[in-house]
Amino acid sequence: MKNFQHLMLPFSDHLQRYSEGLSERQPPELYEPVSYMLGLGGKRVRPLLVLAGAELAGGNPNAALDAALSVELFHNFSLVHDDILDNATLRRNHPTVHKKFGSNLAILVGDVMLVEAFKSLDSYPDPVYRSLCRLLQTTSVEVCEGQQLDMNFEKSNQVSARDYVDMITLKTAVLLGCSLQMGAICAKGSQNDQQHLYEFGKHLGIAFQLLDDLMDCFPPSGSFGKQVGGDIMSRKKTYLVLKAMELGGRKERSTLRDYYEGSEQASPKLIGEITGIFRQVKADELCRNEAGDHTRQAIRSLDRIGGDPVKKAAMGEFAHDLLNRTA
Amino acid sequence: MKNFQHLMLPFSDHLQRYSEGLSERQPPELYEPVSYMLGLGGKRVRPLLVLAGAELAGGNPNAALDAALSVELFHNFSLVHDDILDNATLRRNHPTVHKKFGSNLAILVGDVMLVEAFKSLDSYPDPVYRSLCRLLQTTSVEVCEGQQLDMNFEKSNQVSARDYVDMITLKTAVLLGCSLQMGAICAKGSQNDQQHLYEFGKHLGIAFQLLDDLMDCFPPSGSFGKQVGGDIMSRKKTYLVLKAMELGGRKERSTLRDYYEGSEQASPKLIGEITGIFRQVKADELCRNEAGDHTRQAIRSLDRIGGDPVKKAAMGEFAHDLLNRTA
Repeated sequence: MKNFQHLMLPFSDHLQRYSEGLSERQPPELYEPVSYMLGLGGKRVRPLLVLAGAELAGGNPNAALDAALSVELFHNFSLVHDDILDNATLRRNHPTVHKKFGSNLAILVGDVMLVEAFKSLDSYPDPVYRSLCRLLQTTSVEVCEGQQLDMNFEKSNQVSARDYVDMITLKTAVLLGCSLQMGAICAKGSQNDQQHLYEFGKHLGIAFQLLDDLMDCFPPSGSFGKQVGGDIMSRKKTYLVLKAMELGGRKERSTLRDYYEGSEQASPKLIGEITGIFRQVKADELCRNEAGDHTRQAIRSLDRIGGDPVKKAAMGEFAHDLLNRTA
Repeated sequence: MKNFQHLMLPFSDHLQRYSEGLSERQPPELYEPVSYMLGLGGKRVRPLLVLAGAELAGGNPNAALDAALSVELFHNFSLVHDDILDNATLRRNHPTVHKKFGSNLAILVGDVMLVEAFKSLDSYPDPVYRSLCRLLQTTSVEVCEGQQLDMNFEKSNQVSARDYVDMITLKTAVLLGCSLQMGAICAKGSQNDQQHLYEFGKHLGIAFQLLDDLMDCFPPSGSFGKQVGGDIMSRKKTYLVLKAMELGGRKERSTLRDYYEGSEQASPKLIGEITGIFRQVKADELCRNEAGDHTRQAIRSLDRIGGDPVKKAAMGEFAHDLLNRTA
């Protein structure tokens, strides 16, 4: 993220001012959890992409601060509700909103954050306002659809690796594309630049998720502390599992099916056996290749943008860092 | 509702077309519950108020159909999430969305309905679009705040009858005002007409809720089948209870406090005792008077609208019917 460091401070200030405003709103029981959630931090990837998108489209990133806030509010709304759905207890090493404040309140807190995300766009003049609303609305619906597909996958035995990529596209990747394009809209960038920035963000998001899944099973040498096989233990049907189901022989498929359709806890031995199958059928290579394809598509889209070559290079480097962090 | 009968068919058709469109969207697991909820019916008061607001502001109600759909989607989103919060099992004599499809799905279904509510406004041209979005956003936040206040009240012993009116204003009444004003915005009505229609709807909503609470304890003669004292049994802190707490002597306050702060089930005898206290301290009269005040404020706002006297009279009659249904 070092290439976007100059954008972090303006965004942090903007978010800080918004959070301070929350402390004056009534009733505090509703707004305190919003501040809590926003204050948990995170890398602020999405709002930084909004500001970077504005720069790449030739505009002033300050003009995109409200759009960046909007995207951050939307992202946090989705985390608050997803954490209820997943019954997650921790988020960024702190109790999730529903664990700290109760599920009922967390539903309402998510709702108000979603509305606030759209309200934050009200500072934009008219054709820009419409474009921003339209893009964020389309993306919001897609994120809900992706979340539903993810929930469907937990129950289905008919999911392919292709379906998985479609699911993560909706659940995760489109919001990255949306963030960059919203920045370009604020900067009144050309339709072409807008579209290419969207595609860049979307393919980057897909590549990132695939590499994140890969790293969960096959951590890069030198990485410490992270649990290996967390996705296996939670029976997450990632690209690796689905490819191994498609490509494995009868014995491998049977081992995978016994575990993924069962309810027994995975022993370290079984985790080793499953990652062994992934390697044996080359699901790891295929996953890395698929991520590589999307990375190349992302870079191709970035190349097509008409912006400042220095800023484009910085964005390319950001993409590289993001992907190598997990590869 | 007989005065708005001519508006019901166009709205039903419009809603029907929208629901048919849902059946083509993916994944069906997400959109079927949306259709289910919208198909449960109800009196469609809010969308009819949108269309009537357009007529009263001198416009064609057909121009307000998408705004009416938006309000109906918003209202149903709030019902889906409120039913989870209240753990309600039935809605319009059918299983609630979370009972039929599960709480996780109901959270997501509500989310997508909220986004769809805003998306439905996209058909409006630019200054109208902005006004509609802004009003619905402000109202949405207020409805969340009202819901939070309602949740706070369940736990607090420091609530006044005044606080209760403020709570129902946010939770229920502002959406009626919003509905009428959205209609007037679609019809490009004057700022004055917009404001008076909003106030008319808001005060009508407050009066309606107060009379609804009153009827729950003191049903009008000739009413059958409805359980008397349902609000008492569920320990709902209505205007009646809060006024009785303010005005009762030590003995009455003690009876009320013992019950409302306890957890025992109310016997028919205790319900009779509590309604007896309401009558004794004249909380019923005060509630009716408060509703009367808001009714008069509503009618005064209606009088100030510059529209067609015949349509104004029809709206006055609608208000009269709505309030007498429950008085």
